[in-house]
Amino acid sequence: MIRIGILGYGNLGKGVESAIRQNEDMELVGVFTRRNPDELQIRSRGVPVYSDSKLLEMKDDIDVLILCGGSATDLPKQTPEYAKYFNVVDSFDTHAKIPEHFEAVDVVAKEYNTTAMISVGWDPGMFSLNRLYGNAILPEGKDYTFWGKGVSQGHSDAIRRVEGVKDAKQYTIPLDAALDAVRSGSNPELTTRQKHLRECFVVAKEGADLNKIEETIKNMPNYFADYDTTVHFITEEELVKNHSGIPHGGFVLRSGVTGWEKENKHLIEYSLKLDSNPEFTASVIVAYARAAYRMNKEGRAGCKTVFDVPPAYLSPLSGAELRKHLL
Amino acid sequence: MIRIGILGYGNLGKGVESAIRQNEDMELVGVFTRRNPDELQIRSRGVPVYSDSKLLEMKDDIDVLILCGGSATDLPKQTPEYAKYFNVVDSFDTHAKIPEHFEAVDVVAKEYNTTAMISVGWDPGMFSLNRLYGNAILPEGKDYTFWGKGVSQGHSDAIRRVEGVKDAKQYTIPLDAALDAVRSGSNPELTTRQKHLRECFVVAKEGADLNKIEETIKNMPNYFADYDTTVHFITEEELVKNHSGIPHGGFVLRSGVTGWEKENKHLIEYSLKLDSNPEFTASVIVAYARAAYRMNKEGRAGCKTVFDVPPAYLSPLSGAELRKHLL
Repeated sequence: MIRIGILGYGNLGKGVESAIRQNEDMELVGVFTRRNPDELQIRSRGVPVYSDSKLLEMKDDIDVLILCGGSATDLPKQTPEYAKYFNVVDSFDTHAKIPEHFEAVDVVAKEYNTTAMISVGWDPGMFSLNRLYGNAILPEGKDYTFWGKGVSQGHSDAIRRVEGVKDAKQYTIPLDAALDAVRSGSNPELTTRQKHLRECFVVAKEGADLNKIEETIKNMPNYFADYDTTVHFITEEELVKNHSGIPHGGFVLRSGVTGWEKENKHLIEYSLKLDSNPEFTASVIVAYARAAYRMNKEGRAGCKTVFDVPPAYLSPLSGAELRKHLL
Repeated sequence: MIRIGILGYGNLGKGVESAIRQNEDMELVGVFTRRNPDELQIRSRGVPVYSDSKLLEMKDDIDVLILCGGSATDLPKQTPEYAKYFNVVDSFDTHAKIPEHFEAVDVVAKEYNTTAMISVGWDPGMFSLNRLYGNAILPEGKDYTFWGKGVSQGHSDAIRRVEGVKDAKQYTIPLDAALDAVRSGSNPELTTRQKHLRECFVVAKEGADLNKIEETIKNMPNYFADYDTTVHFITEEELVKNHSGIPHGGFVLRSGVTGWEKENKHLIEYSLKLDSNPEFTASVIVAYARAAYRMNKEGRAGCKTVFDVPPAYLSPLSGAELRKHLL
């Protein structure tokens, strides 16, 4: 059994808790929290909740610690810190800062002989893998990544900060015309506006100026100004009833050519349609926790990403079983 | 530079020759053939054609030998034999015999400290990888593989053996209704007939009994009897004009659930749309030749499959470049 600890019990931590139940070679040792552990109710019967200050004492009881904090402030500190004591997996997803996060974690993990897997999930994660495989197989070609249909937490938060807004959900929606153009093999150059549109469901405060809210959202730089954005005002009840899920997904495409005269076109397409973004991310993380455990057993210490993991390490099946049933 | 040799110059060997041109860190040392080398014209200027009997003399000039023979009779002999002297890559695709092929190659490669990569291509190959990733991420779910639209060489050959048939091409076509049922998340049980149909384009010999040919094809056990099959009689000119390509492709889907009550559905879909089946297969093989070369440099000898290869080994980019640009 691989003994797992969870640090942080938000949506992602809950997803990891559920995913562990679906993997028979894993057991949850405990959930660790910055909150008062007595006030935290988890779903796993008989599994204790601890203060995060207990973690170091339990060093020998945990094979892999899964870090379920956020990328903005938690993980840049937590991952290098806990990689001193544990094999860890995180879902650090600030793409531009991955190189520096990698370096910070790698130094520690190598010194302490732990295996620290960073940026695990679907983007970064499974989408990254598909970009890599696509580029390696079709060196002459073009990459396309589309996101959605799904809820963007960052954009929803941005709307909530607008004056007069009580609550909001924002969906990122890939445009079929753009997807079809890519699938045609024409390797189009696509603008931001041509790839995705943004649909916003907004609950306004009583007496708020709806026109002003709509204009403020649509003209918000970076978040909305470069997109076609639609704004729907709805009631709080409608928001709860119709927009409480956290679906997401998207597409990674590689369109390339082969042949002596580059006369043949090929399209590789990978897509995800997810009812729950955090639960799917958690499921990927748990598979990579298995890999981190195995790689560490084999002495492969240091910071790793999905690019460094032989796929077989993700599966509970043996090499012979995999070759027989899945190859 | 990674120095590559090609053994066998059929469609696959030609595809490998083209793919090497698209990879700047590789050079083609020579094409080796069982035929008379003087009679073989290859496309790469300045690259020699040798008799396969020359291979052993050139042991030190080749980093990876790519075996482009067939799975029925060539590879079961060639791969274990040449793994004594070279790092090799093959595209052995008789799924049921992969375990024994692996064992035969592994013994030799381990003894001689070579790295022998077998069953590389898209199925087995990229499709297998997607089955593995899908199973590891969503342990509770169902796998679906669909092939096509594409030319099945084996089925085309079977038709050509029917009395009265001069030439033929057979297309395997996945049924949209089945794909849509899988995408809906309903995890349907699908019969052979529900998943694919078979479309045959047949050139009959003069005076042949067309009804009899059609009935013979449609009732052929294993090949056609379990499918809805359509037979079109066309002229030789039409066959050449409209059916000379070797397109293929298909879909791998994993449909699964997560959540404490398994309440959330997820769909992972990977698809390929290929103008040239052998050239795409060759492109995958060439990327894995890079991996075989690197793994051997690191002392990882033995038989390997796509399951054993860290994705980063397929790319000419460094780990840091990959993390910066593709993660």
